[in-house]
Amino acid sequence: MQPLSGVRVIDISHVLAGPYCTMIMGDMGAEVIKVEQYPDGDMIRDTGPFINGVSYSFTMINRNKKGIKVNLRTEEGREILYRLVKTADVFVENFRPDIVKKLGIDYDTLKELNPDLIYCSISGYGQTGPLRNKGGLDIMAQGMSGIMSMTGEQGGRPVKVGIPIHDIGAGLTALYHILFAHIHKMRTGEGQYIDVSLVESALVWTVWEAAGYFGNGEVPVPSGTRHRRMAPYQSYKTKTGYILLGVVSQRLWEKFCREVVDKEEWLHDPRFATVSDRLEHVDQLEEAIEEVFGQESSEFWLEKLESVGIPSGPIYTYDEVMNHEQVLGRDMVIDYEHPVAGPMKTLGFPAKMSKSPAQFYSPAPQLGEHSEAVLRQLDYSEEEIQQFKKESII
Amino acid sequence: MQPLSGVRVIDISHVLAGPYCTMIMGDMGAEVIKVEQYPDGDMIRDTGPFINGVSYSFTMINRNKKGIKVNLRTEEGREILYRLVKTADVFVENFRPDIVKKLGIDYDTLKELNPDLIYCSISGYGQTGPLRNKGGLDIMAQGMSGIMSMTGEQGGRPVKVGIPIHDIGAGLTALYHILFAHIHKMRTGEGQYIDVSLVESALVWTVWEAAGYFGNGEVPVPSGTRHRRMAPYQSYKTKTGYILLGVVSQRLWEKFCREVVDKEEWLHDPRFATVSDRLEHVDQLEEAIEEVFGQESSEFWLEKLESVGIPSGPIYTYDEVMNHEQVLGRDMVIDYEHPVAGPMKTLGFPAKMSKSPAQFYSPAPQLGEHSEAVLRQLDYSEEEIQQFKKESII
Repeated sequence: MQPLSGVRVIDISHVLAGPYCTMIMGDMGAEVIKVEQYPDGDMIRDTGPFINGVSYSFTMINRNKKGIKVNLRTEEGREILYRLVKTADVFVENFRPDIVKKLGIDYDTLKELNPDLIYCSISGYGQTGPLRNKGGLDIMAQGMSGIMSMTGEQGGRPVKVGIPIHDIGAGLTALYHILFAHIHKMRTGEGQYIDVSLVESALVWTVWEAAGYFGNGEVPVPSGTRHRRMAPYQSYKTKTGYILLGVVSQRLWEKFCREVVDKEEWLHDPRFATVSDRLEHVDQLEEAIEEVFGQESSEFWLEKLESVGIPSGPIYTYDEVMNHEQVLGRDMVIDYEHPVAGPMKTLGFPAKMSKSPAQFYSPAPQLGEHSEAVLRQLDYSEEEIQQFKKESII
Repeated sequence: MQPLSGVRVIDISHVLAGPYCTMIMGDMGAEVIKVEQYPDGDMIRDTGPFINGVSYSFTMINRNKKGIKVNLRTEEGREILYRLVKTADVFVENFRPDIVKKLGIDYDTLKELNPDLIYCSISGYGQTGPLRNKGGLDIMAQGMSGIMSMTGEQGGRPVKVGIPIHDIGAGLTALYHILFAHIHKMRTGEGQYIDVSLVESALVWTVWEAAGYFGNGEVPVPSGTRHRRMAPYQSYKTKTGYILLGVVSQRLWEKFCREVVDKEEWLHDPRFATVSDRLEHVDQLEEAIEEVFGQESSEFWLEKLESVGIPSGPIYTYDEVMNHEQVLGRDMVIDYEHPVAGPMKTLGFPAKMSKSPAQFYSPAPQLGEHSEAVLRQLDYSEEEIQQFKKESII
C-alpha cells in the first residue's frame, strides 16, 4: 500500500506547475484524473520532441495519471466535472483567478458539492492583491521574486535559471501543502482551500538574501558562481576548462594553500588572510588561483582537491550527467514502453524510501484515453457517452 | 490543531538543507528539537549579518525550533541523543554517510532504539554509488546536476543560480518524503529510512531538458533568459532597462506584432512567421525587437503589453521585491521580537491555507537554550545536568 493509495485527485491544471505536483502524487499511489479541455487538451502536448506524434515533454510530467477530455464550456461538460468532484479528495488548478470563476469551477462552487474537498489553486502572484489577475509565467516570476536580479554576471544581460524553477517550485509548494491538508483531513475530516503562487514559492527560498537585506540593507547583485559570504567558493578556470571549489572554513583555506596550490605565503597575505579579506579582494583571489590552476588540467586539480578533502567538483554537461554511473546506478533513468511511441525514458525518483517508495505505473495518457472508462464509473450510460462524443462534450 | 502538532522531530542537521526542511515542519506545528554539536553548534551561527551577536542568517531557517547542545563524541552525549530518539517520530541528518556511522547515529543503530522511527538522510550524492562519501555543497550539486551547464550566457564564464537552489531543493524533497512516510506511519504504524540527495533532488526538475535529451539527443546550453522552445520569450532591452516578455502562442505573436510594436510585416517575414522560424532566427528577432523597444521606457512597454494581455513583467532588484505591495500585502514579511537581537524580520509562508495555516511561534533558539529543559523531560536529574555542563557534555 502506497502513502496515497485510495486518494483521488482531480487535476485540471496544465503546462508544468500543477501537472508536476500531481505527478508526484501519482508516483505515491494517488489516483490522478487529469482533466483536459476539449478539443486540444494541455498545450504542452504541442511541445516537442515528438515520437510517433507523442510529445516527449508531455510524457515527462504526466506519468501515473488517467486522462479525460471534457468541454467545460458546455453544461454537460461542467456536470461531468461536478460528478467527478463529488468523488474526489483533492482538486488542483492553475488558471488565472478570474478564469475558474468564469468556468464555474472555483472553490466556492465546488465546496458546495463536496465540503471536504482539498482545493489547491496555483497562480503567478496569488489570489489576492493588485497583481492577482495578471498572467504569470515562470520567467516573470523569476523577475518578480528578485532571483533573476541576483543570477548572472554583474553588468551583463539578465540571466534566468536554466530550468523553469518557479513553475517547479510552485508545484512542490502545492504538493507539500496538499499533504499537510491531507494529514489535517485524516485527523479532522475537514477539507480546505490552498492558495499557492509562483512568486511566493520561490521568494521563501531567498533566506540568505533576506538575512542580508533585513539585517544590513544589502541588495544582492549577480556574481557569476560566487558565494556572497565565502571565498574561495566559485568556479575557476584551469588549463582545460572550469572546476568548482568550495573552501568553507579557515582550516580548509590553510589546507588549500599548503597542500593544493603550494602557496604558504597566501596565509600571510593581507588580501587573503581571513574570509573577509578574501571577500574584499575576491577578484584578485580569482586571478591568483587561476594563475596556478591554469598550469594543469581540471582532472589534475579535482583529483588533488579530492585527495586532501576539499569540496570540489566538475561542471557536467547534461549528456555527461545522464551517463554518469552515480546517476544511472541510483535509477535516475527509467525505461518503459509507451503504447504509441514505443520505448521511452523518464527521470527516476528523487528519494529512496525503504518502505513506501515511489513507483512507475503507467505512461502519460493519450488525450481522452480514459474518458469513457471514467464516465462509466460516474454512472453515465453508454447512450449518454456516445451522445457526448457526438456533441463535442468529451 | 496544526497538521503536525504532536509530531516530534529530532534535527541534527546543519547549515541549510536539513534546517530548511525542519523549519517548515515547525511552521506546521511539529515539535522540532535542533541538536547542535558541542561546543560551537551549527556553523551557520558564524555567518552574518549579526545583530547583538545573533546571526541573522541562522534565524532565517531555525524559527519554531527548540535548541539543545550536545557533545556527541562522549558516551553520555550519545546517550542523551538515544533517549531523545526513543521519544521521536522523525530524525533528520545531513552529514556525510561515513560520519553518522562514526558518531553512532546511523539508521541501523537508531532503529534498534525506536523501530517506528522515520529517519531521513540528506547528502550530496546519495547513500550508495561511487560518490557516496564525497562532500557535496550546493555549488558542486549545481555542477553535477547539469543545471549550471544550462544557466548563463553561451561562451561566458559558468554562472550559478543566485541562491543555493540545490540545498533548498533537497530540503523540500526531504520534507515531502517525510510527509509521505508520516502518512504511511499514520496508516500502518511503520517507520522507514529515506535517502535524499542534493543532486537527485534537482535533477528531477530537468523535465524539459530530459525530454529533449531522451527524445532528440539535445544537450542544452546556456541561453541567457531565453526559452528553449518558444520565442520571443526572454528579456529585452528598452530605453531604460530590461523587461521580460513571454509570447507563448501564435495568437499572442500576432497580437504582439499588430498591437504592441506595430510591425504587421513581421507576420509575413520568413524569419519570424512561425515559432520554429523565430527560434531559428532568435538573435535577429532580439535585434529587431530591441530596435523598437529601445525607443521607449520599460514602463511604457510593460503598460502596453499588459493592456493587450501579453505576459510580461519587470526584473526587480531585491529591495523592490521586498517593498512591493503585492509581497507585503500577502504577509511575506513577518516582524517579531528576538530576546537578544530585538526587532527582527523573517520571510512569511509560501501558501495560504484556509484551515491549517503555517504559524510563527518562536524565534530561532540561542545555542543550547533548551538543553536543560529537554534533559529534564528525558528524566535526567538536576545533578546529572549540572555534571554534564561541567564535563562539557552539554
